[in-house]
Amino acid sequence: MEESSEDLKWMDEALKEAEKAGEIEEVPVGCVVVVDQQIVARGYNKRESLADPTAHAEILAIQQASRNLQRWRLSDATVYVTLEPCAMCAGALVNARVARVVYGCSDPKGGACDTLYQIGQDTRLNHRFEVTGGVRAEEAAQLLRDFFRERRKKNKRRDGREVEGA
Amino acid sequence: MEESSEDLKWMDEALKEAEKAGEIEEVPVGCVVVVDQQIVARGYNKRESLADPTAHAEILAIQQASRNLQRWRLSDATVYVTLEPCAMCAGALVNARVARVVYGCSDPKGGACDTLYQIGQDTRLNHRFEVTGGVRAEEAAQLLRDFFRERRKKNKRRDGREVEGA
Repeated sequence: MEESSEDLKWMDEALKEAEKAGEIEEVPVGCVVVVDQQIVARGYNKRESLADPTAHAEILAIQQASRNLQRWRLSDATVYVTLEPCAMCAGALVNARVARVVYGCSDPKGGACDTLYQIGQDTRLNHRFEVTGGVRAEEAAQLLRDFFRERRKKNKRRDGREVEGA
Repeated sequence: MEESSEDLKWMDEALKEAEKAGEIEEVPVGCVVVVDQQIVARGYNKRESLADPTAHAEILAIQQASRNLQRWRLSDATVYVTLEPCAMCAGALVNARVARVVYGCSDPKGGACDTLYQIGQDTRLNHRFEVTGGVRAEEAAQLLRDFFRERRKKNKRRDGREVEGA
């Protein structure tokens, strides 16, 4: 399915979530879950702050959506996420029976909706979802680039101090 | 890697977790996480009781292990689970950087460690883990068969009552 002005609007909300992650020095990925033109859950990557390898934006948003709606079947939901979901998150989106996934930039190293796997299109699994990629891709990628550049600078300064202090 | 007497012992613990799931009418799948010959976390499927599509045994056990150890990298962990992990859980085990995964019976409809995908062996991802399948497979499969047979019986009785009351 092609992107729409609706998609751009919701992806802007996911980008706001990604920015929150960046502010606490987490890799900036954000997600919102939309049902009936309303955001029912938001999430951003908290792997480091929660010390939890499952705390990706999508997992936290799916969990929050289920809590808010008090059901695990999210078959009326569209999930907006700034980075292409990994295998864990793509599998979670299948398990949650979501209708559609819209993502920002592709993930050449771990993307499991188009790039390395097409988990949402696998007819052997018990559910499939529609996928639209590349929505606000440049903004999503820029957030990630800025984050990693900043982190490299910080690491360099830290390494410099360590050498000085050695 | 071949199964060992250690593996049988830890899988028995995972089977106990699976039984707990069955007792609350959840699909009986159980999991334990072992580090340095000790169980650091336990989990069993709670999808229905938590109304959470991500609440598979492995996800709950990984989250508990991370909380207990206060770190997301579980590179010293072996994870024992009674049913072959799905894409979500296999992806989570990659994200958690676990060393090894031992499972009971295969999952022809969703298994992502051997059957449909080999996510733990994918050299394109940033981590790989060892996989040993078929440990206590018959016991694990029997638990699942008994559960589904019992559920079909209950549904039949319920449908019968509904017809009578109609």
